[in-house]
Amino acid sequence: VARIEDLSTPCLLLRRQVLAANCARMATRMDGLGVALRPHMKTAKSAAVAALATRGQDRPITVSTLAEAAYFLDAGFDDITYAVGIIPQKLAAAAELQGRGARLTMITDNLEGVTALSEEAARLGASFDFLIEIDCGAGRAGLPPASPAVLELGRRLQDAPGLSLKGVLTHAGHSYGCRSSEEVVAVAEEERSGAVQAAEALRAAGLPAPVVSVGSTPTALHAARLHGVTEMRPGVYMLGDLDQMALGSCSLEEIAAGVLARVIGHNRQAGHLLIDAGGLALSKDLSANRFLDNVGYGRLCDRSFTPLTERLYLAEAHQEHGMVKAPGGAPPPFERYPLGSEVVVLPNHICMTAAAYDGYHVVNGAGEVEDFWPRATGW
Amino acid sequence: VARIEDLSTPCLLLRRQVLAANCARMATRMDGLGVALRPHMKTAKSAAVAALATRGQDRPITVSTLAEAAYFLDAGFDDITYAVGIIPQKLAAAAELQGRGARLTMITDNLEGVTALSEEAARLGASFDFLIEIDCGAGRAGLPPASPAVLELGRRLQDAPGLSLKGVLTHAGHSYGCRSSEEVVAVAEEERSGAVQAAEALRAAGLPAPVVSVGSTPTALHAARLHGVTEMRPGVYMLGDLDQMALGSCSLEEIAAGVLARVIGHNRQAGHLLIDAGGLALSKDLSANRFLDNVGYGRLCDRSFTPLTERLYLAEAHQEHGMVKAPGGAPPPFERYPLGSEVVVLPNHICMTAAAYDGYHVVNGAGEVEDFWPRATGW
Repeated sequence: VARIEDLSTPCLLLRRQVLAANCARMATRMDGLGVALRPHMKTAKSAAVAALATRGQDRPITVSTLAEAAYFLDAGFDDITYAVGIIPQKLAAAAELQGRGARLTMITDNLEGVTALSEEAARLGASFDFLIEIDCGAGRAGLPPASPAVLELGRRLQDAPGLSLKGVLTHAGHSYGCRSSEEVVAVAEEERSGAVQAAEALRAAGLPAPVVSVGSTPTALHAARLHGVTEMRPGVYMLGDLDQMALGSCSLEEIAAGVLARVIGHNRQAGHLLIDAGGLALSKDLSANRFLDNVGYGRLCDRSFTPLTERLYLAEAHQEHGMVKAPGGAPPPFERYPLGSEVVVLPNHICMTAAAYDGYHVVNGAGEVEDFWPRATGW
Repeated sequence: VARIEDLSTPCLLLRRQVLAANCARMATRMDGLGVALRPHMKTAKSAAVAALATRGQDRPITVSTLAEAAYFLDAGFDDITYAVGIIPQKLAAAAELQGRGARLTMITDNLEGVTALSEEAARLGASFDFLIEIDCGAGRAGLPPASPAVLELGRRLQDAPGLSLKGVLTHAGHSYGCRSSEEVVAVAEEERSGAVQAAEALRAAGLPAPVVSVGSTPTALHAARLHGVTEMRPGVYMLGDLDQMALGSCSLEEIAAGVLARVIGHNRQAGHLLIDAGGLALSKDLSANRFLDNVGYGRLCDRSFTPLTERLYLAEAHQEHGMVKAPGGAPPPFERYPLGSEVVVLPNHICMTAAAYDGYHVVNGAGEVEDFWPRATGW
């Protein structure tokens, strides 16, 4: 059996037991709230993780790229919502997936685009199911729930040859700006009520809206009720990260993934350690710094994911160099971290960090490397 | 012949003629300064680009990972400097490369690590060439040029079985903080004089220092003289990016690489376009924002790399969503960018951005896609 110390660095570690507990907790919670779980696989991008998140079955999933859709289809997951606005240029790839057995659901919020989407569907001899994207307050994409454009888009989709209306979808991205559980509960209610309002407006106009899809990890974990919602699409809860910890969506102990790195230098003049995980190994995401001090590009733990007593963190990230400092400018204890010492870095944002790796080294509590799970990559 | 509009997005475009001119300009400049060019391939990570950078020959190169070293060795580049501090755990991989014909040069600045490196070399039955890393003012890694530790490390390396001293190496990373050509010229002289001082100290002590290796793109392009230097290791000059443009290392027209993306949505309420290039497609690097306004995660051009007249830029980057705004909060001209419209995003930092892709779509001035050049990935 390989051990963590046998791995070359940097690499991505995944704690199987922690992952399994995170998946089970979310599934139980969705059962309790009476909605289907359609986990968003854009974070983990792994069929093995998807199997855990869907309780061992090839159940509904969400993806953020058609490359993910193809990967998961090959792994047996055929009920796939592609939760990024579709464009005509991507329909050929989507039709190819449907030809291989995928049941795809697309989203759009673009009135002007319906004609081009319908024409491309006709050219391909394909038909596509659509949800209307709703903006429940995040301000990224989607139509406002009360906008007349929701009905107009619904009519156009339903009338356009090759396109079918199946409901609405929203994502409470603004849950990532909340500072308290109470705020997340309020955002979750905005997410729920916005999606339900839009779906009810469609139904009142005689249009179909069987699907009411919502979800983000913070709102999935904090929503007080989900009346009218049919499915939730959280994703990052499976792995967790410092940003989710800062948001109250997980504890430190519930973070399942981290980057294994080694000490490659001591800069005694400048007062930092160097490790072989820098900007490429961790990403340049700084999200958790808006809530936490002494985070930088990540916090250092030992091989068992226990934070180092010196509270070391990655203060700067160059391409392959990570500069590790102690809080308050104290010099790191160089003698405790000789050249080659292993550390685990918990990243700010695991979606961004994990994307640099082609897979996970799956570890157990005893520090044994049990498996390697590939990840979907690219677009 | 495929055209840019046939490509699926997001993807990485590389302008062959611009790349070739960038490579030729640097090679000519190094000839004029009388130093060897050992281009740093950590940016481009492509054998085809390395062939251009080394004038069609399998000449010396620099890498930042042993995965790059293996990739370039397979492509015929066997004279490789691995310019990140080595640790004992990586020597087995290095020895394997040497067994396949690589002439590797390693670096270290760590007095305490020499014994472990030598013991691992003995265990592997291998020997390794070393440069001492010098800190010429960047404050990342390396020993100060005048430090007695330089001589002590030189002696230890020269005395340690299996290890050989070959000289010194430094990198003026602080050139990236300069605001004027004059400042870069001064930093280039710090880089040169620091490396030469350390090399001369080693020689005065009877230790070998045939190699005096320096380099960053800004200093390579601005150094007034390189007396005593034997080789330069710039890298990002091949491709260029907004940060290099802001530093005066390239013009906008000399940026050879960008991300092709398409418009996937119009948010009329919030006043932004959405494109299918977000944080994964561009990285979360924000470097050029310290010098330029209205950059965000990148600036938008048309397919021929001409900036859009509306000066649109990527104001926010979610995983697969890029939010495009106009300066000063003006609404983007939605009607000019219908769903599916193609744009090219010039990134802040091409080293970080290119790492998300498995290769380049090589384009000519007529918008034809001439080739696909793979990239080295991972570690």
